[in-house]
Amino acid sequence: MNEANTPLSKGRLDSFSDGVFAIAITLLVLEVHLPANVDSHTITGQLAGLLNVGHQYAVYFVSFATIGIMWVNHHALFKNVRNVTHGLVLANLLLLALISFLPFPTEVLAQYGITSVAVVYYGLVMTLISIAYTICYLQILAAHDVPTGITPWSIVGLTFYPLASVIGYFAPIAGMATMGILALFYMHPKNIRTVVLAGPE
Amino acid sequence: MNEANTPLSKGRLDSFSDGVFAIAITLLVLEVHLPANVDSHTITGQLAGLLNVGHQYAVYFVSFATIGIMWVNHHALFKNVRNVTHGLVLANLLLLALISFLPFPTEVLAQYGITSVAVVYYGLVMTLISIAYTICYLQILAAHDVPTGITPWSIVGLTFYPLASVIGYFAPIAGMATMGILALFYMHPKNIRTVVLAGPE
Amino acid sequence: MNEANTPLSKGRLDSFSDGVFAIAITLLVLEVHLPANVDSHTITGQLAGLLNVGHQYAVYFVSFATIGIMWVNHHALFKNVRNVTHGLVLANLLLLALISFLPFPTEVLAQYGITSVAVVYYGLVMTLISIAYTICYLQILAAHDVPTGITPWSIVGLTFYPLASVIGYFAPIAGMATMGILALFYMHPKNIRTVVLAGPE
Amino acid sequence: MNEANTPLSKGRLDSFSDGVFAIAITLLVLEVHLPANVDSHTITGQLAGLLNVGHQYAVYFVSFATIGIMWVNHHALFKNVRNVTHGLVLANLLLLALISFLPFPTEVLAQYGITSVAVVYYGLVMTLISIAYTICYLQILAAHDVPTGITPWSIVGLTFYPLASVIGYFAPIAGMATMGILALFYMHPKNIRTVVLAGPE
Repeated sequence: MNEANTPLSKGRLDSFSDGVFAIAITLLVLEVHLPANVDSHTITGQLAGLLNVGHQYAVYFVSFATIGIMWVNHHALFKNVRNVTHGLVLANLLLLALISFLPFPTEVLAQYGITSVAVVYYGLVMTLISIAYTICYLQILAAHDVPTGITPWSIVGLTFYPLASVIGYFAPIAGMATMGILALFYMHPKNIRTVVLAGPE
Repeated sequence: MNEANTPLSKGRLDSFSDGVFAIAITLLVLEVHLPANVDSHTITGQLAGLLNVGHQYAVYFVSFATIGIMWVNHHALFKNVRNVTHGLVLANLLLLALISFLPFPTEVLAQYGITSVAVVYYGLVMTLISIAYTICYLQILAAHDVPTGITPWSIVGLTFYPLASVIGYFAPIAGMATMGILALFYMHPKNIRTVVLAGPE
Repeated sequence: MNEANTPLSKGRLDSFSDGVFAIAITLLVLEVHLPANVDSHTITGQLAGLLNVGHQYAVYFVSFATIGIMWVNHHALFKNVRNVTHGLVLANLLLLALISFLPFPTEVLAQYGITSVAVVYYGLVMTLISIAYTICYLQILAAHDVPTGITPWSIVGLTFYPLASVIGYFAPIAGMATMGILALFYMHPKNIRTVVLAGPE
Repeated sequence: MNEANTPLSKGRLDSFSDGVFAIAITLLVLEVHLPANVDSHTITGQLAGLLNVGHQYAVYFVSFATIGIMWVNHHALFKNVRNVTHGLVLANLLLLALISFLPFPTEVLAQYGITSVAVVYYGLVMTLISIAYTICYLQILAAHDVPTGITPWSIVGLTFYPLASVIGYFAPIAGMATMGILALFYMHPKNIRTVVLAGPE
């Protein structure tokens, strides 16, 4: 394949994707703020201010970890890609659009609390992200003439994020816990696997 | 050409441009917010909050797609560039200035709705972007001693974006639809074409 | 010089600097907003809204051009750097700190109008930026064992930005015009010159 | 080690980290604002506005220097890394999460002033950052089969940031001064040292 005539290069795909991940993850701190109605002139008032935002710390670190894990998996998925097809670029744009949308369901969770509506909404967005990852994976296989197939890595996400949403409707905390276990699954080094694409470099 | 003595390198032009695209596209989520006047303590109130921002989802994904398609086309246009001239750098700055301005006409559309004024304004900004792309294209040809010429790729944008603005004045929805068709045109792989620049690497 | 033992690499200096420039330039659009007190339900009200922010368009494009020209000059200045010394890294951080501070004097200008105080303030920040560029230049010469010297490029900035501040105190518009001419000077290709550093790559 | 089969590459680790640093440092200017209650129509009112934000200038430049110094040290620490292990990626994510959290303790300091609570809080976050740097360092050693050890570079941070917090509880200004001295320590070229990792490239 004569690379000079293909419209897209791997280097710019990576640097654009890394930029989107880096910005999405850094914007999260803009959501952490001191409460407005606290007496900032006494030690107890100041301490109360810092403790009142306790759940914001949790939301910040969980969101940072979620986007961070997605970056690691994106990284592994694209590492050996040599042919950047048009379909892969569009699939990657869809994936980035959903990932950089994540601050909004996070804000919903922070504002509504761990309620049925907020957990189901979060679960639906995570389901869409699983679908987008799977589309990217299939596009990568097609671009390198590898027979199509779906790995356990995809099946887990496509099965358990919808399930977590259903659970979350009836028992919000159990739904969140299911998604927490899924995050640990995707963080585990055994599950972060490069797509091995045979053939000459 | 002794590259060490030219002031500009292709690598930094790419990384700066990718950075601007990545930031412009990621900032779009900051415009999506829950409505302030919703009862967040009942399930119906929470659902109403998420459904009320329905048009914001549309604006988010359409804007993301628009900037994404522009990134793909920028990418293709600059891929084979070897000589980064001063004129090309200035043309690229003009293009980036207009593209990272896009969140403002998007906000106008979100606030005014699909009305004559908002659609004409959006169409004018898209017309300016078409002009800036064409200037970049001509600068690239000039920098590589390729005879000047304009491709259908440029002519479509230079003709149909002004036309969409005129249509939008009389029939806003038809104007927006015309711009939607133009987006599909520029997303189509046949229309994303690298500038082939002969000569030694 | 054994590069593996020097703490800093040229690649990351460039990518960090490009990132700061790209973000500073993209954040500018966050300052452009529709006025709050406009009737958005009539065509005349909507038009008035878009025309009322006319000076914001000017501030946006002038600021974009200013930071863009600085990026081009930064680019040219650092292009042939091979030895990234500690002094150069600190000088570069000082320069980036002042450049990413620019949105604030821009906001002052937008809020106070072209008045003595705003123009003098803007001129002082531009003077500090000229000083930081000169420090970078001297650090680059020192890092490559080139005899110290100051070019017209530095002398123009170090002389005329303070002068523009003084003029701006008595005649704000004349002060701004002087800074506009300086921007054109730094945008001119003859004045964007790479530092030629002899010696083996 | 067959790099094509390891999930992570050094290039994307660097570009993602540089992106996070660049964004965190550039967002700092968003905290500098003119006071709302100033008469912007008289010269004295305008001057008062610019002088009232005096402490914001200090916070801006100190925060910029703090994140800048951390970037230099991150840079030096990772420069010779060849094996990007899973543990190192997670340690780096933890470090970036804490560094991009820094705008919040900075805001606390700006809002509460140099008080016991604000200084202790800032000191605790800096302590956590020291711990994260040390974890990264140990992960790098482990990834390259270098015997584990802790350098004075780590010991200084792990000892003196907690100490500065304790001092800050009783004497806030002395606590801040201790952290200022620590910043100078980490800015000093002798203390910015690359990890030398023997073995074939």
